[in-house]
Amino acid sequence: MAVGDVTMPLMHVVQGVKIGSTEAYVRYPNRRDLVIFEFAEGSNVAGVFTQSAFAAAPVLLSKKHLAESASQKQPRYLIINTGNANAATGTIGYKNAEATCAKLAELTGVQSSQILPFSTGVIGEQLPIERLLQGIQPALNDLNADRWADAASGIMTTDTTPKGASEQFELDGVTYTMTGISKGAGMIRPNMATMLSFVATDAPISRERVQSLLQTTVEHSFNRITIDGDTSTNDSCIFVATGLAGGTEITTQDDPRYQQVLDVLARIMNRLAQLIVRDGEGATKFITVQVEGGANTQECCDVAYSVAESPLIKTALFASDPNWGRIVMAIGKAGVPNLDSSKVQVWLGDVQICLDGGANPDYTEEAGAAVMAEKEITIRIDLGRGTAKDTVYTCDFSYDYVKINADYRS
Amino acid sequence: MAVGDVTMPLMHVVQGVKIGSTEAYVRYPNRRDLVIFEFAEGSNVAGVFTQSAFAAAPVLLSKKHLAESASQKQPRYLIINTGNANAATGTIGYKNAEATCAKLAELTGVQSSQILPFSTGVIGEQLPIERLLQGIQPALNDLNADRWADAASGIMTTDTTPKGASEQFELDGVTYTMTGISKGAGMIRPNMATMLSFVATDAPISRERVQSLLQTTVEHSFNRITIDGDTSTNDSCIFVATGLAGGTEITTQDDPRYQQVLDVLARIMNRLAQLIVRDGEGATKFITVQVEGGANTQECCDVAYSVAESPLIKTALFASDPNWGRIVMAIGKAGVPNLDSSKVQVWLGDVQICLDGGANPDYTEEAGAAVMAEKEITIRIDLGRGTAKDTVYTCDFSYDYVKINADYRS
Repeated sequence: MAVGDVTMPLMHVVQGVKIGSTEAYVRYPNRRDLVIFEFAEGSNVAGVFTQSAFAAAPVLLSKKHLAESASQKQPRYLIINTGNANAATGTIGYKNAEATCAKLAELTGVQSSQILPFSTGVIGEQLPIERLLQGIQPALNDLNADRWADAASGIMTTDTTPKGASEQFELDGVTYTMTGISKGAGMIRPNMATMLSFVATDAPISRERVQSLLQTTVEHSFNRITIDGDTSTNDSCIFVATGLAGGTEITTQDDPRYQQVLDVLARIMNRLAQLIVRDGEGATKFITVQVEGGANTQECCDVAYSVAESPLIKTALFASDPNWGRIVMAIGKAGVPNLDSSKVQVWLGDVQICLDGGANPDYTEEAGAAVMAEKEITIRIDLGRGTAKDTVYTCDFSYDYVKINADYRS
Repeated sequence: MAVGDVTMPLMHVVQGVKIGSTEAYVRYPNRRDLVIFEFAEGSNVAGVFTQSAFAAAPVLLSKKHLAESASQKQPRYLIINTGNANAATGTIGYKNAEATCAKLAELTGVQSSQILPFSTGVIGEQLPIERLLQGIQPALNDLNADRWADAASGIMTTDTTPKGASEQFELDGVTYTMTGISKGAGMIRPNMATMLSFVATDAPISRERVQSLLQTTVEHSFNRITIDGDTSTNDSCIFVATGLAGGTEITTQDDPRYQQVLDVLARIMNRLAQLIVRDGEGATKFITVQVEGGANTQECCDVAYSVAESPLIKTALFASDPNWGRIVMAIGKAGVPNLDSSKVQVWLGDVQICLDGGANPDYTEEAGAAVMAEKEITIRIDLGRGTAKDTVYTCDFSYDYVKINADYRS
């Protein structure tokens, strides 16, 4: 079960966004597995994608269509299937992604390049393309502004809970909405994961600013979570601004409204990213790893990921065992150049466990055990060599992680 | 249980090496946990150690003593305790390591700098130094040439089986012996692990050649294994040549005997390293990851480790599920610059699962499942961009891995 409060909030409608879904039987019968987003004409769309060398066919095609839209018409539709990632599927997989876009284009009268396809699920198998194509019209028939919760369910794979975030906010007296969904529970590591996220607002934001807002916020949200250190072939995050709630377009970062939108988007993206960790495969605890006192951000992240991805630490967290020597091990192996271990401090929650690189003489096992018994635990590390800091979010490593991943395909 | 044949061979005596051990109650009563090696005067000793920034006190002191021995007398004794790593123990830990050497020096009449200390076990707790010091004389009383098997047991932590290798070989008509032991089952990743290994021969080899033989062979043995991607604070590997079996000293790599010794040492080291993987925490399978067709060795290793350390692949191996998409995922995330996925081939055993970056049309699930049902599995990857190749060894990831590491300290 997911850790902490993961309830779906009231998912406010975003003007200019409609969503439809259907049961296309991509992998399993009788489950909602095909979702279509429709954006009003004039919407501005930005995306960021996996850096995997084995990026899936839909990722390659979505990137191509987004690049083309810089000089042509903006994307009007997203089409997302779960159950099959259409990754490592070669030429056939790419043609299937193209066929999906072509069919949706034919049924809606837009250009094929105005459609962005997304897939998530098992890697290395071909899409059941006929069933998928047959599902498009039913999904279109379902299009409605008030379908965000359905969409959140319709993109799940091993997720145990749908993931959503939604806010209303005011800029210069106009009320706007921002709503988003995400999915992902395994194969999660920076530069995204088998992670899909779609966020939309009806605020008026230029294409360039939609892109810069997305890139800025993804860096400290989806690019700072890890469940298993594995990076997926299909990670995609899309941010759309329809502009339909009115107001003049935000075109520069100097516009005071830019920072206000950035704050809202950062909260939404952080929530959607952390929901993925809270629903991490087999997770029983939500872990925040804060590293400070670094010479630069890179080494803070290196240490934070070394801790957050250590199976020995993750199993100790699962066992509620304050075996802090393993934390020190992970700091030591992170490759920070010329790290002086005698300047390193480590805290479990508010309890300092490591003082100047050694055991804190005031530390008691009881104090450490009390922190470890919590469901939400912060590990804080001071490297004692600068002012840089960064934070990574992860979960523990349980029997259920093995069970879920040993059984996933069956 | 360990995977495959891990039986201890006949452990041939090495002339000039004596071993003693005792129950010092470092952590648990009634177990052999303190081991002393004695080398004949004139032995040449080389060592390689963890690269962790949190290298343990005994590692720091052993490195110091070895460095000093370059200009002074060579090491005569190793003293090894299990149950406590004496790592992240600050000044007290360092003084305890010094006190251990001083006591052994006093009892044997050598200089303190001729003693190399080693510890393995829990990190972040101080040694029970009084009990350890009291154990030294009983261990010395036990010194005997025929104690290699006892020593292999006496350095175990979460190991389920003692680990040894031994060979007799002939150089220019003289028969020599090489015998070694190792320990380690978790916190195993290149540049060694919570891994200790001690190998000795009675062949006559100069100090410089002892060092070059060790460095050459460790690179493709202990530096090519991974269980959990975690690197320990205490990894140490020692190679000793006593020269007591006679013959003229091997002083250059041009001596034809140098290559012959190298071959023997490589076999011994590979066996000792692979025994650690076969006894990996919770391991049910022994996995060989061969990467070929790389532009250079580094990228072959990057891909091999990415595959060997992926929790998703390791759990699929545990489940005997030929979920080869996860292998492609791991290749994709390895960071190989400009990798052309359409040139990548992947085999499970002899079964080609991925052809030119996509699913092999001739592949059948039955063929893949047959390979996955084996206890020893080779994953072979051709990157299709060069002639470099390398191999990494690992094991699968089971419920028992979680159980062992969630319970270790209790």
